[in-house]
Amino acid sequence: VTLAGGLQTPATCVIAERLHKNLERMQSFADSAGFGLRPHAKTHKCTEIARMQIRLGSHGLSVATVGEAEALGGGAIDDLFVCFPIWADQDLVSRLGALTDTLRICIGADSAESVMRLRSLKGRLGISVEIDCGLRRTGVQPAAALGVARAAREVGLTVEGVFTFPGHSYAPGMQDEAAADEAAALEEAAAVMLQDGFGPLVRSGGSTPSARRAHPRTVDELRPGVYVFNDAQQIELGVAGFDDIALVVVATVVSRPEPGRIVLDAGSKVLGQDRPSWATGHGRLLDYPDARIRGLWEHHAVVELNGPGTIRLGDLVAVVPNHVCTAVNLVSELLVVEAASVVDRWAVRARGGHDHR
Amino acid sequence: VTLAGGLQTPATCVIAERLHKNLERMQSFADSAGFGLRPHAKTHKCTEIARMQIRLGSHGLSVATVGEAEALGGGAIDDLFVCFPIWADQDLVSRLGALTDTLRICIGADSAESVMRLRSLKGRLGISVEIDCGLRRTGVQPAAALGVARAAREVGLTVEGVFTFPGHSYAPGMQDEAAADEAAALEEAAAVMLQDGFGPLVRSGGSTPSARRAHPRTVDELRPGVYVFNDAQQIELGVAGFDDIALVVVATVVSRPEPGRIVLDAGSKVLGQDRPSWATGHGRLLDYPDARIRGLWEHHAVVELNGPGTIRLGDLVAVVPNHVCTAVNLVSELLVVEAASVVDRWAVRARGGHDHR
Repeated sequence: VTLAGGLQTPATCVIAERLHKNLERMQSFADSAGFGLRPHAKTHKCTEIARMQIRLGSHGLSVATVGEAEALGGGAIDDLFVCFPIWADQDLVSRLGALTDTLRICIGADSAESVMRLRSLKGRLGISVEIDCGLRRTGVQPAAALGVARAAREVGLTVEGVFTFPGHSYAPGMQDEAAADEAAALEEAAAVMLQDGFGPLVRSGGSTPSARRAHPRTVDELRPGVYVFNDAQQIELGVAGFDDIALVVVATVVSRPEPGRIVLDAGSKVLGQDRPSWATGHGRLLDYPDARIRGLWEHHAVVELNGPGTIRLGDLVAVVPNHVCTAVNLVSELLVVEAASVVDRWAVRARGGHDHR
Repeated sequence: VTLAGGLQTPATCVIAERLHKNLERMQSFADSAGFGLRPHAKTHKCTEIARMQIRLGSHGLSVATVGEAEALGGGAIDDLFVCFPIWADQDLVSRLGALTDTLRICIGADSAESVMRLRSLKGRLGISVEIDCGLRRTGVQPAAALGVARAAREVGLTVEGVFTFPGHSYAPGMQDEAAADEAAALEEAAAVMLQDGFGPLVRSGGSTPSARRAHPRTVDELRPGVYVFNDAQQIELGVAGFDDIALVVVATVVSRPEPGRIVLDAGSKVLGQDRPSWATGHGRLLDYPDARIRGLWEHHAVVELNGPGTIRLGDLVAVVPNHVCTAVNLVSELLVVEAASVVDRWAVRARGGHDHR
């Protein structure tokens, strides 16, 4: 990416053409394989991209917090799933109630206690029961889904389905296994609930690394997020190539203390600090596949080139963050780039959504 | 910390009494040991705290970007050091020029090339030469400081000093060694420059872990940042105790899939993802010293209690982030707590400063 002069770095840029390609490719995969697509909007937090996803055929979106639902809901975006086990106090119950006035809204639950707190939203709010398929984060074991579902029925909330996040797909070579675990857990939980009279149920799964290994007929809906932009993690997992990267942080080389070591003005406060144990560094450079970010501080990235090419003081470099969701969350707007020019600016509108759940 | 009801979590809270104690303690240490104190404001990014630091006796503040200088400068805050090797384009030169109208401002440099670009600010801008004392990030070797200083003199910029960041103090047991490296590098660089006719020179160093081991008479000024709040890193380095923690993220227990595993509604988008290799987890709990955050995702922290005490669904828990500077950067305001009540809200004013350097 070469940008016209005058750009202030670090600058978080969306490569529009690649974004459109990524959006279309995932939607046509889902359509042809028979999955509903409910993309996770926590990745981009932008109304503009949310609308594109709906226009291309997604039946709704996923969000992580009630704040994200408030920021993104409205207009064409009228069906939201907060795929998080919400623990509601009185204020959150009111906010959820307000959302149900204009949107179809469903939230996650993994305990009978959390569901009971929502009784005043009887008949207005959907519940999906969270199942743990191997990540050991949130979610009940499949056989225990019934307890949560019955609590919802008892207080008059509609049980719409079961969901899981196969997050163990975020490790090299684990995508097939995670997709199999996802299918087995969703199938078992749904079967127990169908037998008890619940239904129809949406069995919802899916992450960017595992989406293409998901089991059709067992899984009804996928919720990938990262695929819109991709990132260094997806490259190193073998899920995306450099050509699929649609978001970069353009940085300036501010220091070059020795020939093989350059320092950029983009640190963890703009790239994010995510670094799984299997990652080869703190991010990659779009145009230098051999280079690695060996050190990352708040305002500095130290790059080792490890290959041909020279980078001089003052050069602009396009950095691919390790995890694009946290990188987007660090800026107030994304610069939209077409043919090496900034053509638009999109507000990261749901960014405040994490400040107040 | 117990907060009155109605608090929306996750909530990033400052414990006012402890903040004041931390500020006073560092200032009186610096005063009695003979160091000037120029605290790094990138930690808090708040005008309110910046003013307290000046009122207590700091002669100026450090910032990381020109954007932070623009956000914080003004009024009593009239002396700022941008301790970063700025690579200025025309726009940045203009912005620095505008700052010199109302502030005393000095910036970092570690190359002759970067200094030459500032020639139009002749007579208005100070330069401090960055020295590498062992971190291998930015900065020249001490003997090479002269080249940068001479470039500054040639274009009419005032060379005010030399500075270094002993960042290798961020490892267990390394504080004394890092402080010794800092003193040796500053002394060598300053001696070479004094011999060439430069002076007087401020020799500036200092991080929170190494500040109390800094060498008086060799080091003139300290630039710690984290000490205002402290964090889990400082606890695990042995630099701070739980009683010194002045910033916590209050979170709700939203899930408890098994008795020893609880899940909080505070993830990396509010705590930050920093985790050095020697850290025991992704943060600590203020009231449960044995607990560890063993997993952290964007909106979930998975806690293992490892000890006595029970935590129930819906309980509020005070989380101590690993690295407080990146945690503050994730929220738009800090809630100020006194005697278990929120008494004020401080805007994280310089938060935008990283979006545009």
